[in-house]
Amino acid sequence: MNKHVYMYDTTLRDGTQGEGISLSVDDKIKIARKLDQLGVSYIEGGWPGSNPKDMEFFLRVKELDLKHAKVTAFGSTRRFGVTAEADDNLRMILESGVTAVAIFGKSWDFHVTEALGTTLDENLSMIYDSVRFLKENGLEVIYDAEHFFDGYKHNPDYALATLRQASEAGADWLALCDTNGGSLPHEISEIVARVCTEFATPVGIHCHNDGELAVANSLAAVGAGARQVQGTINGFGERCGNTNLISIIPNLQLKLGYECVPPEQLKQLTNTSRYVYEIANINPPNLQPFVGHSAFAHKGGMHVSAILKAAETYEHIRPESVGNTRRVLVSELSGQSNLLFKAQELNIELDKTKPEGRTIIQKIKEMEHQGYQYEGAEASFELLLHQGLGDYEEVFAIESFKVLMEKHGESDSTTEATVKLHVGGQTVHTVAEGNGPVNALDNALRKALEAVFPDISQMYLTDYKVRVLSEQDATASKVRVLVESTKDGEESWSTVGVSTNVIEASWEALIDSMRYALMGRQNEAVDLSGDEIERQGIVNH
Amino acid sequence: MNKHVYMYDTTLRDGTQGEGISLSVDDKIKIARKLDQLGVSYIEGGWPGSNPKDMEFFLRVKELDLKHAKVTAFGSTRRFGVTAEADDNLRMILESGVTAVAIFGKSWDFHVTEALGTTLDENLSMIYDSVRFLKENGLEVIYDAEHFFDGYKHNPDYALATLRQASEAGADWLALCDTNGGSLPHEISEIVARVCTEFATPVGIHCHNDGELAVANSLAAVGAGARQVQGTINGFGERCGNTNLISIIPNLQLKLGYECVPPEQLKQLTNTSRYVYEIANINPPNLQPFVGHSAFAHKGGMHVSAILKAAETYEHIRPESVGNTRRVLVSELSGQSNLLFKAQELNIELDKTKPEGRTIIQKIKEMEHQGYQYEGAEASFELLLHQGLGDYEEVFAIESFKVLMEKHGESDSTTEATVKLHVGGQTVHTVAEGNGPVNALDNALRKALEAVFPDISQMYLTDYKVRVLSEQDATASKVRVLVESTKDGEESWSTVGVSTNVIEASWEALIDSMRYALMGRQNEAVDLSGDEIERQGIVNH
Repeated sequence: MNKHVYMYDTTLRDGTQGEGISLSVDDKIKIARKLDQLGVSYIEGGWPGSNPKDMEFFLRVKELDLKHAKVTAFGSTRRFGVTAEADDNLRMILESGVTAVAIFGKSWDFHVTEALGTTLDENLSMIYDSVRFLKENGLEVIYDAEHFFDGYKHNPDYALATLRQASEAGADWLALCDTNGGSLPHEISEIVARVCTEFATPVGIHCHNDGELAVANSLAAVGAGARQVQGTINGFGERCGNTNLISIIPNLQLKLGYECVPPEQLKQLTNTSRYVYEIANINPPNLQPFVGHSAFAHKGGMHVSAILKAAETYEHIRPESVGNTRRVLVSELSGQSNLLFKAQELNIELDKTKPEGRTIIQKIKEMEHQGYQYEGAEASFELLLHQGLGDYEEVFAIESFKVLMEKHGESDSTTEATVKLHVGGQTVHTVAEGNGPVNALDNALRKALEAVFPDISQMYLTDYKVRVLSEQDATASKVRVLVESTKDGEESWSTVGVSTNVIEASWEALIDSMRYALMGRQNEAVDLSGDEIERQGIVNH
Repeated sequence: MNKHVYMYDTTLRDGTQGEGISLSVDDKIKIARKLDQLGVSYIEGGWPGSNPKDMEFFLRVKELDLKHAKVTAFGSTRRFGVTAEADDNLRMILESGVTAVAIFGKSWDFHVTEALGTTLDENLSMIYDSVRFLKENGLEVIYDAEHFFDGYKHNPDYALATLRQASEAGADWLALCDTNGGSLPHEISEIVARVCTEFATPVGIHCHNDGELAVANSLAAVGAGARQVQGTINGFGERCGNTNLISIIPNLQLKLGYECVPPEQLKQLTNTSRYVYEIANINPPNLQPFVGHSAFAHKGGMHVSAILKAAETYEHIRPESVGNTRRVLVSELSGQSNLLFKAQELNIELDKTKPEGRTIIQKIKEMEHQGYQYEGAEASFELLLHQGLGDYEEVFAIESFKVLMEKHGESDSTTEATVKLHVGGQTVHTVAEGNGPVNALDNALRKALEAVFPDISQMYLTDYKVRVLSEQDATASKVRVLVESTKDGEESWSTVGVSTNVIEASWEALIDSMRYALMGRQNEAVDLSGDEIERQGIVNH
């Protein structure tokens, strides 16, 4: 039996149909690189015919040196009444320069006549012509049979006839779609088995999670002979989402012995999942299977020694196998290897056997315990490492800040911030307005620093996120603020702040961002004399 | 074939093992009432032996007049080496006054000898004795076979022997637990079928979601003969959570023809799911199957007329059947019936055919579009209805407010708020401090009002929640603030505010809370003369 199951990722196309998920071309490029590192076989990048953003992605993704994944375009079969050669959509797919394509066609007779408004025969020709045309142009063709399971349940003969067109025209894959997401595992199993019996063309499965069964349905399909699973990272997608590849991969690979990604990449699952959440700016759900923060959390009431002695009897898989960590609440041992790994990535040597190393690890644990999170705030993390190693010097020192917000009647509120700090041997005291407390503080801070460091004016915030931590406790709940900054739109970095006061948390993140931007430039500041500063007019803006 | 499948809810026990979920006794009573309305068969309330909070729940829940559900206690089999009669845990179960109990025992030989540290034979006696003792005391007994599937895979004979003890001692149910959550549907199916063949006692299933398969595994068990499904609302629970009853019920009842809850209660599923999220203070995930906000959202690009004509071909079930609503993004038609239903609950007549009715519906839609959410803010909703119907009079009017926050060096920050408002024919101007902007504003506002309404001093905030909306857009992201207030700790009410500025959003919610507390009392305020106010010393605190 062939034990290879191909992972077909559509995070960048179907995933972005999810409500509240929107990815820039930059975001998509970053995710494509990550998916390739994980080792998926296909990355569906978008629909070249549908918008210019997707076309830009296909142009830019060619510059990446992808190791595992084939970049795939998505599109529909030709419109009715035109030849494949004359169809704009199909032409755009060729123009996108991909070597593989997924095109979808209708399997359900009702949709052909009602939604599409054509005849059953014309639909068959549309499928045949489109696949043939793309094959003649040298592409690998995945035929996506839309609404296949619902269509089959209503009219099995017609549903199978559509597949026959694709197969005879040379399709490399027949991917069966549970488009409405309502099928049950036993139905999927039975229907996929029938298709696998009738066709020599390899079969794929594309499920949605409307019944909370997308993972189970995809596993059932593989059990019945499917060898390609389409899905998205974290199950992003329209309505209730698509099949979650982050759960499919370990279920298939660790429990059923299939090969989906190179075995050594399995431990990138947790990291990949969180990376995609960060880029999409979505809170990772703690209870997500395999990769969630709580997925391997053991309560204090359990016999810890027993867990450590025979963890496999308390855990369905080893957490390290998917890059997650066991959390035993009585001893916070987790995460140490992650820290060392991260320091290495930043070219900072961190030896946990030396005192500085131990102190830094201790410090980071303390900070994380307070709610800081460095996964998405690498600049704050790097500052912390340098501070711990003693090779960081302050470029400026804050004396005080103040925020004043006022609202009169129905008029708009006004916010003013003042900042007093020491930089370049001088005390600088500035004031600025903003559309809210954070914006005002950012303006005042920048004003204070840009006289000594004129290039700070080219730096600006690109992202600002607030999350409420420990939602449980009404009055004491903390917020975590993440700030992303850039200089000239090229380099960008992220910082974090935590406090019970949202203004203070934001302030912390802003300060870290400026510190990071100015790291190593303390000499420039000290070189400036008081006179020079006066001439540049920086005192008391 | 018996088509009744009993829903055994353990939100109040296993659900609270989920990280970040903690429920007060009040919360548990509220949820129990809701579960009974939904029509589940069993409500597992807690472990009487484990803590006084659970015991208090069992005392208080008796006062509820539950229609459908049996309240169940949870506990373990007797300790080894003591008789069942002498076991404290079992005694506490009897004391709790329940009529049904779930007791768990060990099924996996390894856990008996290693974790429990006793012999395989003693474990069998522990099971037999405990079930017998509880049956002799007149209870319905559900025997929870912990780690049953893993145990069976390692030593099927011993696992079955443990069930035999429970069955022979008179257990009413044998509930098979996939405690580590790692089993796959085909395994569950095969093992449950074997148990159903060997035992006449009805079988239950208890799954965890570690493989993202809890719903599928529970369906597989029912398919193999199980007739009780244990789970929680929204799948709350330890690690990755338990089986989500909110998905199990419609899958079994709408798709497979089983009876789980009274058919007319199915449309309470969405409402029940969100109610439990609100009480647990957790953001409902938009993409949750069946009940999520996005579960029936159709993109604008689709042929809307086709959806409206033949929705069943685009949706796996009708959204109304589970109390959810279709959302067609081009026309925000949803939610109207919910509004009318809510108004009715508040004894406010709202006729959508009259102009006021239409205006109110329009207004609420606008507000919800801006990010307001009235599910968890009934006081704001009621104010809005009264305003729309023209029977609301302002008790006070805000002129202005101001917040000043300062931080010097490493010292703690200080926050001061001033409020200027008109009440009782006077202008009142107050100032107060707080540990953050919201606390300071609350203090200043209360100070301004309590001279005219002295009883406002008995009112205080019990809950404060901030959620960031539209996380996508960095600078324009809005926050929604929910505030819960109480007077004397008896009556309580919730209000909402939305703004890009967290202070303004909080202020809105605070103002609504005071307005609600003072609704209908405008005459008291106007009756007070300026002289009287001066004597009470309220001006310019």
